[in-house]
Amino acid sequence: MSKPMFERMALIGVGLIGSSIALAARRHGLVKHIVGSARTKETVETALRLGILDEGVSSAREAASKADLVILCAPVGVCGVLCEEIKDVLKPGTILTDVGSVKSAIVEACAPHLPDGVNFVPGHPIAGTEQSGPEAGFAELFEDRWCILTPEPNTDQMAVSKLKSFWEGLGSNVEIMTPEHHDLVLAITSHVPHLIAFNIVNTAGHLERVTDTEVIKFSASGFRDFTRIAASDPTMWRDVFLNNKEAVLEMLGRFSEDLSNLQRAIRFDDGEALFDLFAKAREMRRGVIEAGQDTDQPDFGRRAKTESKDESPGSNS
Amino acid sequence: MSKPMFERMALIGVGLIGSSIALAARRHGLVKHIVGSARTKETVETALRLGILDEGVSSAREAASKADLVILCAPVGVCGVLCEEIKDVLKPGTILTDVGSVKSAIVEACAPHLPDGVNFVPGHPIAGTEQSGPEAGFAELFEDRWCILTPEPNTDQMAVSKLKSFWEGLGSNVEIMTPEHHDLVLAITSHVPHLIAFNIVNTAGHLERVTDTEVIKFSASGFRDFTRIAASDPTMWRDVFLNNKEAVLEMLGRFSEDLSNLQRAIRFDDGEALFDLFAKAREMRRGVIEAGQDTDQPDFGRRAKTESKDESPGSNS
Repeated sequence: MSKPMFERMALIGVGLIGSSIALAARRHGLVKHIVGSARTKETVETALRLGILDEGVSSAREAASKADLVILCAPVGVCGVLCEEIKDVLKPGTILTDVGSVKSAIVEACAPHLPDGVNFVPGHPIAGTEQSGPEAGFAELFEDRWCILTPEPNTDQMAVSKLKSFWEGLGSNVEIMTPEHHDLVLAITSHVPHLIAFNIVNTAGHLERVTDTEVIKFSASGFRDFTRIAASDPTMWRDVFLNNKEAVLEMLGRFSEDLSNLQRAIRFDDGEALFDLFAKAREMRRGVIEAGQDTDQPDFGRRAKTESKDESPGSNS
Repeated sequence: MSKPMFERMALIGVGLIGSSIALAARRHGLVKHIVGSARTKETVETALRLGILDEGVSSAREAASKADLVILCAPVGVCGVLCEEIKDVLKPGTILTDVGSVKSAIVEACAPHLPDGVNFVPGHPIAGTEQSGPEAGFAELFEDRWCILTPEPNTDQMAVSKLKSFWEGLGSNVEIMTPEHHDLVLAITSHVPHLIAFNIVNTAGHLERVTDTEVIKFSASGFRDFTRIAASDPTMWRDVFLNNKEAVLEMLGRFSEDLSNLQRAIRFDDGEALFDLFAKAREMRRGVIEAGQDTDQPDFGRRAKTESKDESPGSNS
């Protein structure tokens, strides 16, 4: 194995993303030593027990001290506070990054606290599951996924290149864009989809004529996929919406306009308009499959439990 | 193997659902002979080639003739026409059923064509994938899923019991309710979720400042799950919305009210309201997992391709 890229990687937060970074970085030999802190002592202990961290410490300050790579893996809303906490212990030349789902607000919150000589390169791996906590992490999470970096124009290009190589080493492709464009793209691909998933799950939860038991029983008809998305961490998502307000409200406005249009087509029995819209949506799915961002296995992975039965012709994966 | 329940099962339509019924019924020895027809000759030929049908015929009339179980596996909008076509060849005592996603409209469309002595028991298996066509079928599709039957009060109870046993034989649980209640339950668990998935995919498709390529690249952030749902058959879904208009419009109204409420919370930085709503949505997810209607595997089935790497601690399935 070649020489590790970093001597000491500090993870501030070891939830789903932090622990997955640790597992992947270790598997691929990218870092020599992994130190981590978390909001609770229990999380650090779990991460140590699972072999995710080499060293667990009780504060972000302690973790960041002497590290040459510091990754903030905490909800968007606390990144500024964390930067302030660690600023005095950061070494010159250290790369500081994050994994937050919004970027402009993070840049704004962190910028005032950045010491000279520290290279801040905000990042966002486009990967995740609905699970939270260190037990949810796995080393393959970033494979074939995209990671977006949003450095300012005056950021040291060597630091950007090095962080890009690090993410490529974890299995990802890397794209560089401005924080503002990132926030717009993610508003439509992630933030609004999550919001409407949270919303329909709640709408279903307070109907008078349909019980929760019925909703759950018959959820295989489409609803369960929304509950999966709506199971994501509430703190993380609260912070996303509070910190990407403008882009989310813009995209929500468009979503609602388009939904009114569909609603009108239903009300006035316009089958042709409905068919055309549905057929167009199907084409986008093809693009996602072709880009390797999802599989088209027909059984949602259920085949796994019936491996011995192989006469089914449904496997077109 | 015990005696088959039916001598001759006729499938009018052999897409995803029809072919899965055939494969499951054969595996479990529920029927002696399976005959099928489809809208196109190619579909029948494919179904014969894949061993889904014992016999392929060129018309619904030919398929239904002499069958003791006839299942309409066609889009909701054509079920009435199909009933009219086959009414003269149905044997007394035959059980006629369907698999349509709406029930009141099907009862209304089929009722005028039902000969005396034929037992019409409308049905709806709550199972499916986003795939279409006979190649998409697989025998496990109905396992541990629910099937709803909506017989009229005067329907022969023996016929209802027999069809119930048939679906149980395919691996499903069976629930009996009125067509009206079915349509209300499915409007919220299936029809509105599909509509908003189709809608957000289309919204994303016509933005000026975010390209389709970007939407597809970064779809792993939530959007890809919507494209999966939005990949479902456009004809089927057009018919669903045209035939369950009232319930869909009612549920859409509630969805939009709730969404406005969330939108307001974002606009006025009400983090507490957002957190509470998101946390509630997460509870519904727990119900779906506990009811066995989905798995909580963290990797969406991606583990399959990396089976040899087993050091990841993420497997909490």
